Amino acid sequence: MLSTRHLLGIKNITEKDIEKIFETARYFKEVINRPIKKVPSLRDVTIANVFFENSTRTRLSFELAEKRLSADVINFSASGSSVKKGETLLDTVNNILAMKVDMLVMRHSSVGSPHFLAKHIKANIINAGDGTHEHPTQALLDCFSIQEKLGSVAGRKVAIIGDILHSRVALSNIFALQKLGAEIMLCAPATLIPKYAKDLGVKITYNVREALRWCEVANVLRIQLERQQIKYFPSLREYTLYFGINRKLLEELDKEIIIMHPGPINRGIELSSDVADSPHSIILDQVENGVAIRMAVLYLLAQSN
Amino acid sequence: MLSTRHLLGIKNITEKDIEKIFETARYFKEVINRPIKKVPSLRDVTIANVFFENSTRTRLSFELAEKRLSADVINFSASGSSVKKGETLLDTVNNILAMKVDMLVMRHSSVGSPHFLAKHIKANIINAGDGTHEHPTQALLDCFSIQEKLGSVAGRKVAIIGDILHSRVALSNIFALQKLGAEIMLCAPATLIPKYAKDLGVKITYNVREALRWCEVANVLRIQLERQQIKYFPSLREYTLYFGINRKLLEELDKEIIIMHPGPINRGIELSSDVADSPHSIILDQVENGVAIRMAVLYLLAQSN
Amino acid sequence: MLSTRHLLGIKNITEKDIEKIFETARYFKEVINRPIKKVPSLRDVTIANVFFENSTRTRLSFELAEKRLSADVINFSASGSSVKKGETLLDTVNNILAMKVDMLVMRHSSVGSPHFLAKHIKANIINAGDGTHEHPTQALLDCFSIQEKLGSVAGRKVAIIGDILHSRVALSNIFALQKLGAEIMLCAPATLIPKYAKDLGVKITYNVREALRWCEVANVLRIQLERQQIKYFPSLREYTLYFGINRKLLEELDKEIIIMHPGPINRGIELSSDVADSPHSIILDQVENGVAIRMAVLYLLAQSN
Repeated sequence: MLSTRHLLGIKNITEKDIEKIFETARYFKEVINRPIKKVPSLRDVTIANVFFENSTRTRLSFELAEKRLSADVINFSASGSSVKKGETLLDTVNNILAMKVDMLVMRHSSVGSPHFLAKHIKANIINAGDGTHEHPTQALLDCFSIQEKLGSVAGRKVAIIGDILHSRVALSNIFALQKLGAEIMLCAPATLIPKYAKDLGVKITYNVREALRWCEVANVLRIQLERQQIKYFPSLREYTLYFGINRKLLEELDKEIIIMHPGPINRGIELSSDVADSPHSIILDQVENGVAIRMAVLYLLAQSN
Repeated sequence: MLSTRHLLGIKNITEKDIEKIFETARYFKEVINRPIKKVPSLRDVTIANVFFENSTRTRLSFELAEKRLSADVINFSASGSSVKKGETLLDTVNNILAMKVDMLVMRHSSVGSPHFLAKHIKANIINAGDGTHEHPTQALLDCFSIQEKLGSVAGRKVAIIGDILHSRVALSNIFALQKLGAEIMLCAPATLIPKYAKDLGVKITYNVREALRWCEVANVLRIQLERQQIKYFPSLREYTLYFGINRKLLEELDKEIIIMHPGPINRGIELSSDVADSPHSIILDQVENGVAIRMAVLYLLAQSN
Repeated sequence: MLSTRHLLGIKNITEKDIEKIFETARYFKEVINRPIKKVPSLRDVTIANVFFENSTRTRLSFELAEKRLSADVINFSASGSSVKKGETLLDTVNNILAMKVDMLVMRHSSVGSPHFLAKHIKANIINAGDGTHEHPTQALLDCFSIQEKLGSVAGRKVAIIGDILHSRVALSNIFALQKLGAEIMLCAPATLIPKYAKDLGVKITYNVREALRWCEVANVLRIQLERQQIKYFPSLREYTLYFGINRKLLEELDKEIIIMHPGPINRGIELSSDVADSPHSIILDQVENGVAIRMAVLYLLAQSN
């Protein structure tokens, strides 16, 4: 049992919740690596994946997690939906719930939208990203992957490098790493670090070499190529020149380092291929752990009903 | 067993069919309110949801109904499909059926398209809306909701208020209410009442107060905001002023009244929030009953094979 | 067991593989014509349908095949996906596989993309079309349909008539028919026959009457109406006039002939309705056989793990 009926963000859960999720995820990771990858745990639970913004890997990861728990799955995406017909978010969600849906996995562009819903509806809500605010399952799978690789998160030095300002991932990661006792350094061009960062109790640097020298784990964020309006310091090419991570940089360090990335990777921009595919990288472990973490979250929240 | 192998429209079924559907839906409504919401009834039936026009709530409601009957479900939407490659409707459908699909739930913009198909194919067809013609499951769930709330439909006074001309819902509602013995009044600006309405044996008024004073149930239709070409009397603002239903209007009546709406609601246009969320409203009951009605229709039609 | 872990193309498999697939498909065709259309064969297998290009019938046919084998099915389409965010094909696929997907059905516009992936990933790959190169399951179902109708493929005279240059289907058909011992004639305007055709060991004609007089089976390809840039000899109307197949042409022949088409048909262009719907046509048998063939391929490849 968790201390909450919803997973709205890392901010709202306790360290003990995180440990319970990790413990459960370790079990489910074993399950999905067996020939028989399914368990009947959520056999009579209906889960709606409601994505008001596009997502491939997160939706797919949740959908697989749900199916491996034997839940009934309904997918709802905003394109071509009643949302476009002027319906309010609460009406849309209440309609879905009136069809006897038990749990809601939601991505929405507006900060705080799952928190707003949680006050008005009965179903369990899992926030799969509210704008650039929280994306708690990503933070959980990232910390789980660090713990799996290094044995613990507490006391570890983790650098978060890249476009922190526009990231869906950064804030939840900071909250989770701090709850688990890691030290954090943010590294980006000054224009890509949010103003509130200085109040978060994290180190900040504008020098990627400094970040890499300091850290044991580098979580490299993606450059949002699809958002053309973002100005990248001042050009993409210069971003890569000053902040891109390649093998030469890592060899200069002459130490063990773990490279993470939430994907999709822009190879040759924030990360060179010889780093992404190197033994330093645990990027595909993150993806695998994502399914186990989401199974654990869904399973534990369902128990709270 | 119903008197028909297809549900093309309310026009084509008998009062006895409707009663059989309601009786079955009452049973399924109990089922979906149990912890175990599924029954194995259609375990070896494959159902294709073929939506040539976008729909959120209707498709979702059918999909949940099908899954709770344990059917195998295939979704087909026209976007990006062979329909765009110049294929005829009959060829598209025959192709789907050649893959051994047993039942077809179809929405299409053309009036009469499911009726045309029913003459040429073997699978059971459920019309999920053919243009502004029939949408029989919506009418069934509406009448079922009235019966559930008031004990009967026969003799009840039902006002249908709003954009009747462009509604997917109005005509099937009129047929169903008449078969079950209700009295009907249509209420809209003259420009939004179809010419054939005067031949339907219904009362017509252009005054929303008159409709509300007369009726026990007000079924409020939605303004089709997404169809920009429709001219609303003469502006949306004036429509709301003269035909929008708000709490003040209802308080003037000083009587019990039931408010229905097929959704999605335009809050503040055809219906104010203090009415939509009031105890008068059975809008979310309609949604819940939709799943039970669709389970009943699918179950009974499958028995006809 | 097949001689391969992947179905990349007909070129890569043996005649014995094809016979094994046909034998298995005959069994599955019986299954899907029984009241209980499902078998538990792939109950613990997860299959991802990854379509980087739109497809209706092929995706639907695979999805039904997978569900009838009781596999867990995940659909991934490129629209709105991380592919648009600049991710490489290999990264996209590795991400999907890291979620413990066992088999991959893929359509991609680039020739050779499934062959490239097969060198880098562990999951079984089924090519569902790589550009205008191979589309092996279509060729298998076509040959299976000929064998079913005529008792054998060996020694049969098959004409492939239409837009061979832009077809996704022609090349795999040629390979499969040749492996099974059929004779082949290509028939099209000279501009729609690829240059490499003369090296394939097939007859070529520019006269549709000659092709029809010669063959026992005419596999009529579709004109790609949706690709507006293609110039059709020199107009669509002239194409139909010189290469369209209608009842009058067939009656002149005064012999048995089988008409096939991969669909979707452009009625009145490459094929008139009185031919498409005549007893000569086995077009809907092809669709039905498609599900059985795909079940056989998936089943046999799963056994290779």
